[in-house]
Amino acid sequence: MSRYMPAEFDRQQAAILIFPERPGSWGRSVRAAAAFAEIINAIAEHETVYVAVNERSRANAKRLLNKTDSIKLLEIPSDDAWARDVAPTFVRDSATGKVSGISWRFNAWGGEYDGLYASWELDDAFAAEFCRKAGFDCISAGDFVLEGGSIHSDGEGTILTTESCLLSPGRNPGMSKAEIERTLCEYLGGEKVIWLPRGIYNDETNEHVDNVCAFIRPAEVVLAWTDDRNDPQYELSAGCLETLENCTDAKGRKITVHKLPTPDIPVCVTAEDMADFEFEDGEDTRETGERLAASYVNFFFANDIVLLPQFGGENAESDRRALDIMQSLLPDRKIIPVNAIDIIKGGGNIHCITQQIPV
Amino acid sequence: MSRYMPAEFDRQQAAILIFPERPGSWGRSVRAAAAFAEIINAIAEHETVYVAVNERSRANAKRLLNKTDSIKLLEIPSDDAWARDVAPTFVRDSATGKVSGISWRFNAWGGEYDGLYASWELDDAFAAEFCRKAGFDCISAGDFVLEGGSIHSDGEGTILTTESCLLSPGRNPGMSKAEIERTLCEYLGGEKVIWLPRGIYNDETNEHVDNVCAFIRPAEVVLAWTDDRNDPQYELSAGCLETLENCTDAKGRKITVHKLPTPDIPVCVTAEDMADFEFEDGEDTRETGERLAASYVNFFFANDIVLLPQFGGENAESDRRALDIMQSLLPDRKIIPVNAIDIIKGGGNIHCITQQIPV
Repeated sequence: MSRYMPAEFDRQQAAILIFPERPGSWGRSVRAAAAFAEIINAIAEHETVYVAVNERSRANAKRLLNKTDSIKLLEIPSDDAWARDVAPTFVRDSATGKVSGISWRFNAWGGEYDGLYASWELDDAFAAEFCRKAGFDCISAGDFVLEGGSIHSDGEGTILTTESCLLSPGRNPGMSKAEIERTLCEYLGGEKVIWLPRGIYNDETNEHVDNVCAFIRPAEVVLAWTDDRNDPQYELSAGCLETLENCTDAKGRKITVHKLPTPDIPVCVTAEDMADFEFEDGEDTRETGERLAASYVNFFFANDIVLLPQFGGENAESDRRALDIMQSLLPDRKIIPVNAIDIIKGGGNIHCITQQIPV
Repeated sequence: MSRYMPAEFDRQQAAILIFPERPGSWGRSVRAAAAFAEIINAIAEHETVYVAVNERSRANAKRLLNKTDSIKLLEIPSDDAWARDVAPTFVRDSATGKVSGISWRFNAWGGEYDGLYASWELDDAFAAEFCRKAGFDCISAGDFVLEGGSIHSDGEGTILTTESCLLSPGRNPGMSKAEIERTLCEYLGGEKVIWLPRGIYNDETNEHVDNVCAFIRPAEVVLAWTDDRNDPQYELSAGCLETLENCTDAKGRKITVHKLPTPDIPVCVTAEDMADFEFEDGEDTRETGERLAASYVNFFFANDIVLLPQFGGENAESDRRALDIMQSLLPDRKIIPVNAIDIIKGGGNIHCITQQIPV
């Protein structure tokens, strides 16, 4: 293949985020916007950040973001703020080095089957619109439904994904597993797809891979883990581990797995959170006590740094453990802890709200 | 097609049940066995009942079942007691009238992906072994994974199923939706498959159709329903209703939908229940407070009767309502209420533990 998807840990020319404002995801308070702003400001110290805004989010964005040439606001409408899933997936031409954005079909994580909101036209159009406004070539993937959070690439021909998501009836029910695999390889320049069975318990994306497992370099991954056999996450993680221990990557290498323990105390929706949300008709709602899909694997690589989710409160010790593990695995990068509690309550985490553009 | 699957409401020569004993499904007490016995004794007044037993369940079966020639014990080993899903699906040759049993591949509702127990060899072999011992021809469906509870037939060419189950990654990931549809039609003599999107909330079978919707005569179904928009069941049932209102059956008829409200009070696992269960390694466990997939649609037609689940306690009024609706829809049959609380705690209901053999 002449085009391939570089790894996230490769050098980046920019990152993309969308400034949040949907009340059913982020509540009516400004807390989520402040968390997004902290992330954007941190990345902007290392690379350009494109921030999509609309007429409702623009004022908050201007107020909370640092004044720097590294932050570029673009007026692009969207249904919500999940840049990982609606912004383009970038591939690089191995001959010319030119990068282009792929526009997948987006249906709000499952369309009529189990999608999370009733209308997703703006999100579906986001990738092409971003390419147009930011000046990138756009490759259309036709009717193939995919979100960026459901794939990882090692940059050397290996694509990592989960069966629970890509084989879910809400995505591409007309295609067999083999056809989906061929399509991924065609667009991403892949030679091998590693199918993890499942992801993080209660992850409403049908268990995106980016919440459970991530490459930190070729043939080396971190995997969300728990040793508690009574935790429903246990068998999901154990299934992933078994797959990883019994496969090789596109270059025939065994994969080294580093366990990254999930928060010790489940992170749940509180009554206070519920009072702040405001749901539309047809939108997936939350309930008090509902367990959120909190995982430290949902970090984001930017140049020289990693932004690592932290959950605070009773999980201070788990937070510290994750930070220590990641720092020891990536000694040449600065691991920056980010309080992600107001992001996870929207349903995702740092990786879900970011998308990288390789150099 | 010369062979087709008669509707459950067609005349039956017999029913099949498996006497329960698995401690992770039924607890260590005799309550579930007593509930099974009540059902078997009731059916035996209207037709033959084959009851599969093993060395651990035989004594209880002999003690609790009526002494009648209509009840025939067969020594067939199994992993659990879900006859709907592991016993053969019977088809009739339209030329000769001869009935044969289909043996599907069984993988405990999802195999390594999200199956509910770690070992299912005995269940997988059950259908062929039943045919051999009871004297029926057996048709092997090869490697095609299916459970009887995931399909309904109107006996006139229409097959009803759910996308959530048949398209789940744990069944036949190598097949597209169209290939699965062709396979169903081939084995069941179907001409049209109606795909409901989802089933009952928290149904661990990946939402079998037999818990959410059932034919009561050609072109007429009952559908599990709730008017409470805050109940997670609401959007699942609404999606089914939309599909049913916008389709026709194999004969081109519109389908009449009768709403059958679910229990008003969610039926949940109690601490007392938990004390009684005993789980094996690799077995899906329960938790106190977990909501069970209680639905009145999981009834069983036997000759001249319907056995209808009842949940008792706070749901006495809901129970009565379901009984009244079913009696008014089926005035020529006796609707027999059965206390199903000790069956639903095993994970299914009356329809899940029964399988009919048409005349």
